[in-house]
Amino acid sequence: MVKVAVFGYGTVGSGVVEVIEKNKEQVSKKAGEEIEVAYILDLREFPGDPYEAKVVHDVNVILEDPEVKIVCETMGGTTFAYNYTKAALEKGKSVCTSNKEMVAKFGPEMLKLAREHGCNYLFEASVGGGIPIIRPLNDCLTAEKVEAITGILNGTTNYILTKMEREGADFDKVLARAQEKGYAERNPEADVEGYDACRKIAILSSLMMGKNVDFEKIPTEGITKIVPEDFDYAKAAGRTIKLLARAKVIDDNTLEAMVSPVMLDKENPLAMVSMVFNAILVKGNMLGEAMFYGKGAGKLATASAVVGDVIDCVRHLGKEIPCFWDAEEATILDAGKHSYAYYIRAKKSAKEVLGAVLPGGEIMELPGRDEDLAYFTQPMKQDAFEKVLEGLGDLVLGTIRLG
Amino acid sequence: MVKVAVFGYGTVGSGVVEVIEKNKEQVSKKAGEEIEVAYILDLREFPGDPYEAKVVHDVNVILEDPEVKIVCETMGGTTFAYNYTKAALEKGKSVCTSNKEMVAKFGPEMLKLAREHGCNYLFEASVGGGIPIIRPLNDCLTAEKVEAITGILNGTTNYILTKMEREGADFDKVLARAQEKGYAERNPEADVEGYDACRKIAILSSLMMGKNVDFEKIPTEGITKIVPEDFDYAKAAGRTIKLLARAKVIDDNTLEAMVSPVMLDKENPLAMVSMVFNAILVKGNMLGEAMFYGKGAGKLATASAVVGDVIDCVRHLGKEIPCFWDAEEATILDAGKHSYAYYIRAKKSAKEVLGAVLPGGEIMELPGRDEDLAYFTQPMKQDAFEKVLEGLGDLVLGTIRLG
Repeated sequence: MVKVAVFGYGTVGSGVVEVIEKNKEQVSKKAGEEIEVAYILDLREFPGDPYEAKVVHDVNVILEDPEVKIVCETMGGTTFAYNYTKAALEKGKSVCTSNKEMVAKFGPEMLKLAREHGCNYLFEASVGGGIPIIRPLNDCLTAEKVEAITGILNGTTNYILTKMEREGADFDKVLARAQEKGYAERNPEADVEGYDACRKIAILSSLMMGKNVDFEKIPTEGITKIVPEDFDYAKAAGRTIKLLARAKVIDDNTLEAMVSPVMLDKENPLAMVSMVFNAILVKGNMLGEAMFYGKGAGKLATASAVVGDVIDCVRHLGKEIPCFWDAEEATILDAGKHSYAYYIRAKKSAKEVLGAVLPGGEIMELPGRDEDLAYFTQPMKQDAFEKVLEGLGDLVLGTIRLG
Repeated sequence: MVKVAVFGYGTVGSGVVEVIEKNKEQVSKKAGEEIEVAYILDLREFPGDPYEAKVVHDVNVILEDPEVKIVCETMGGTTFAYNYTKAALEKGKSVCTSNKEMVAKFGPEMLKLAREHGCNYLFEASVGGGIPIIRPLNDCLTAEKVEAITGILNGTTNYILTKMEREGADFDKVLARAQEKGYAERNPEADVEGYDACRKIAILSSLMMGKNVDFEKIPTEGITKIVPEDFDYAKAAGRTIKLLARAKVIDDNTLEAMVSPVMLDKENPLAMVSMVFNAILVKGNMLGEAMFYGKGAGKLATASAVVGDVIDCVRHLGKEIPCFWDAEEATILDAGKHSYAYYIRAKKSAKEVLGAVLPGGEIMELPGRDEDLAYFTQPMKQDAFEKVLEGLGDLVLGTIRLG
């Protein structure tokens, strides 16, 4: 019997309790021991909840109980989670978390603490919800030099883009409906501005590099500027538009990373990932490409990943599960130095000048569209591209990177 | 330093040596120790090969060397592989294999031997080439009750079907070209008749059930009867045709499994898996669906999976890596009891009788096709369907299950 505590009885935390209960037999069999939720830490009371009696408000009750070997941190944020995670690890309790803010910001610190105190810090649920991706990177593709990771890492934005494409609807309208349905938060900034995807690609690329990738240094653009017209041109070009989080190893110390909308060729396996689904494409030097696909969020899927980590902790009580993520900072390439081909939506009157200032590109005009046209450039450095854009002024209505 | 031996210096075996050499730094780092190929067992000589000096012809040289802790079995077949694997495990040497015949036929026996001798029997490379799927099932989705696994597990047949669809070409022609290009074997039976996919789904469903699934009992149909006309109707119905290996848990002891062509709705994530790619869709009771996608074969991808297993063995020298696959046989549902909806291609003259003997279905007639039509039935038991087919005699030109 191994005792577990859950920090935070919200969506994922209650899901963790539910998974342990509903799949009790399976979980015990796979762990080799029975797993019992001994405590639930939350500021609130839960009168009538079947686990009411397990709820405590004082973290020290849990920290001081030597029988608790594993903590599930499903609080979110870093205010309390940082101190509590640290305290648990210092007591030699393994921590399994779904908290991407914590992992992106304090991953190496927590991993080091875990190593020093003979326990583990696992975070499968922090990226891709229930999709296995952290453990595949850490434990499966170990013989690979992983060279690039590209992902659709945010279900909300993928849902919005899919709906915009299928219904020809505006961003604002689709967002409003997504909010009604609970697919988007009341305050959608973290999703639609790409911040959520940014933290997740920072975690994945830290594991790829074995060094710390500071999420704050990753150039990040959201999807708020995408308009239905962009999908018309995308469709005509055999493309779709996705919010991609991309990271590519330049050398042992340097990473090219970016979160931005990409007008993606339909042949790319990520192009068919629609609605709330996530997918992560991993490129290895031996393997070629492998893709991991599924629902990237959801209470039970995410909780299942946390409990999978708990099982791994039980299997490795007192033993270190290797995770290569040093505190040393990886260098992140300046956005201006990235090289992409671009889609430009411009006023009709820009037709001649576009070919002149961005030679070698292709004009696309669609029947029935009298106001604008599209121009597909050759690959070029972002800073050079931005200079050209400045010169074009308000002739340009929008731009999206090609991929 | 951990010494490794490679049994069989063919495509995968030489790939294993190449991966260990090319990714030496990465492999050592992830394993925590340097890995050295100490011996290569093969009947042949390899004059001029850089590893010529490592080649031995007598397995006992390896078995008697206590420094060899891990063996990569990349021989294929079971004639020699069975005895050699057994002997290695009995000596306490872990075995990492890409040999699906061995795993499908002797998996539980080898796993038991490994447990008894304090070593491991790992087989990530036996299904899906370089795509991580065995370890995700064993070590990632541990909190899930996996309820169903559906896969495109054979790259050759997927290539042939993709080409037939895209080019409207006959099976025989596409096969001949695939053979020229090396995408299909000279003797293609194991691929095109579904035997290869059958062994792979037997392995995956054994892990899903925790019991042994006898591949010889899985109803298996190949793709040789598919004609270009079937793709015309599939396209018109928003479908495509794939060779699917499917397994579904009925209860703790009973499995519904089948390998057969399926006319698949385009919305199914497996529908977009084309050319030589493989994909495995796993359905868990908490997770919903997750998919694992990539090249299912290829020298270096497969070898990379074997070396990933080697690294796991090094990390767990003297410790058991859990794998739940008992010798107890799972019951496999009779094919006749499976329930599917069917596509029927029939002579035009069958139009009236089809609706009468298979009520509730839908007729599809395509402009320009005067000889045949398609009929899409309601779901029904296979034995009932077969009885109806008998009555229809040569009015029926072909049938494919819907999915």
